[in-house]
Amino acid sequence: MKDLYPSRIKGNPKIFERMDPVIHDSTEQDGPLNQKELDFYEDNGYLFIPNLFSEAEVEVLQKELKRNMEDNQGSDAPHVVKEAQSDEIRSVFDVHNNDEFFQDLSSHERIVNIAQQLLGSQVYINQSRINFKPGFKGKDFYWHSDFETWHMEDGMPRMRAVSCSIILTDNYHYNGPLLLIPGSHRWYVQCVGETPDNHFEQSLKMQNIGVPDHDSINWLLEKGGKIDSATGPAGSVLFFECNTMHGSNSNISPMPRSNVFFVFNSIENKLVEPFANTSPRPEFIANRTNVKPIEPKAFDFTKKKIAMS
Amino acid sequence: MKDLYPSRIKGNPKIFERMDPVIHDSTEQDGPLNQKELDFYEDNGYLFIPNLFSEAEVEVLQKELKRNMEDNQGSDAPHVVKEAQSDEIRSVFDVHNNDEFFQDLSSHERIVNIAQQLLGSQVYINQSRINFKPGFKGKDFYWHSDFETWHMEDGMPRMRAVSCSIILTDNYHYNGPLLLIPGSHRWYVQCVGETPDNHFEQSLKMQNIGVPDHDSINWLLEKGGKIDSATGPAGSVLFFECNTMHGSNSNISPMPRSNVFFVFNSIENKLVEPFANTSPRPEFIANRTNVKPIEPKAFDFTKKKIAMS
Repeated sequence: MKDLYPSRIKGNPKIFERMDPVIHDSTEQDGPLNQKELDFYEDNGYLFIPNLFSEAEVEVLQKELKRNMEDNQGSDAPHVVKEAQSDEIRSVFDVHNNDEFFQDLSSHERIVNIAQQLLGSQVYINQSRINFKPGFKGKDFYWHSDFETWHMEDGMPRMRAVSCSIILTDNYHYNGPLLLIPGSHRWYVQCVGETPDNHFEQSLKMQNIGVPDHDSINWLLEKGGKIDSATGPAGSVLFFECNTMHGSNSNISPMPRSNVFFVFNSIENKLVEPFANTSPRPEFIANRTNVKPIEPKAFDFTKKKIAMS
Repeated sequence: MKDLYPSRIKGNPKIFERMDPVIHDSTEQDGPLNQKELDFYEDNGYLFIPNLFSEAEVEVLQKELKRNMEDNQGSDAPHVVKEAQSDEIRSVFDVHNNDEFFQDLSSHERIVNIAQQLLGSQVYINQSRINFKPGFKGKDFYWHSDFETWHMEDGMPRMRAVSCSIILTDNYHYNGPLLLIPGSHRWYVQCVGETPDNHFEQSLKMQNIGVPDHDSINWLLEKGGKIDSATGPAGSVLFFECNTMHGSNSNISPMPRSNVFFVFNSIENKLVEPFANTSPRPEFIANRTNVKPIEPKAFDFTKKKIAMS
């Protein structure tokens, strides 16, 4: 397959326009978002929906996140990612496959219908994780486009994926919220450097390759005019386009940040061989086997489940 | 002299109420601040004054800051502090002594009159510096009370000093502005650990001792109700009480932050022997010789100086 978005190059990185539409022929007739919301997403590369989940739902989600992290305490499994400097869990990956509660959640119509509308097709989950950014010592995460990595290291051919972050703690300006550059999703920023095999083992903790240069960030910021912060109450959901440039500052405040993170990819955009010519990253980072479209489900996860068998 | 504020202890740190007034008998008759501003400072421990310096003045200040940093490029003098990981200058200390422009600025009535009003006496400069926090890689600075250090390592006997930070770049939520806990100046938080001699050589780059514990920060935050950020346009000035708990997050944004920083101490609060029983830190960090009250001066530093001799 032709590589439409070459990166990890030698020499001077280029910036070029994306070759894929942002919204794939959807209108407000095709899902829960109205035209104003669709237009905002198309122009800016993200959409923050305050209180998409209720307080009661957030309480359940928080409990399940805590329960999952406790289940994984002491685990040496590769999908359980620890802090660089300690044994504390920072993320648990692949929760839509290895955890019944989050598997259900990943098919909840309230998020899946939006993902379908944005991507103009049926969707599947390419990656999922729950994240815990502790208070007092949450580290910063430098600017990056997820797509650049997913394209080069996972073989995602086109820009037709959306990340859905369900925030489970109030996000303030001062506790390391996600920062985004509006409009940056319209431009592909090449990164410099060759990708080593098994790069993911390092890059999940600290990104070194696939990092855009300062000039490109300055250029995007000049175009976008500002940096936006995803601040708001727990239960809000941020949808952001796979190529939107984002990052976060550190968090010295006592308030931790936790969220559930699903990457919805179009069923028409399944992974191929990685464009960096490396071995594919493991399934828990990038699903490539048994990929099926999600059937959106309506259900109330605040109600105790009744055993079906 | 009796140590009213013991710290650097073994065992469990205590929090106790400050024994000094915040405002020393001043009213709005005694200086430029009105009663509402004085009350805000007394209640919160800081006061942010937007645009105290004009755009034209900021331009001069920025130029002089740059000129000073360039003068000091390549210097190995101890008052020139470099980044931990590189040779870039982060701060130049003692500019009210070693730089004519900043010496003049330190006596400018627009700031000195406020310092006198807040401290209820004549004042002198205990410490000064110009700071440059680069974009993209500005590091965070953990919560601390300046007074705790100045008391233990410099022998500042009482809480009767105020820091004056003239911000020379726009401060946004996302480029690492100073964070403050309102009301924290009313409480003295003991820190754990013995102070080694020459601790300052390390602590100017990274603070390890004189660091408050998590429980104390949580306690202060519960009392104060929120974290406040010193955001605003270049030319604004933040006055904050010597015991106000503050810190800052990292800065991945391209926007650097620079400021001029003067610590005004009451002439009635001159330094004694350090309460940590260590050698006094060098003069460029804590002035103890030739201390004289400042004579506030009115002058326009945007006008080119005419040689007087």
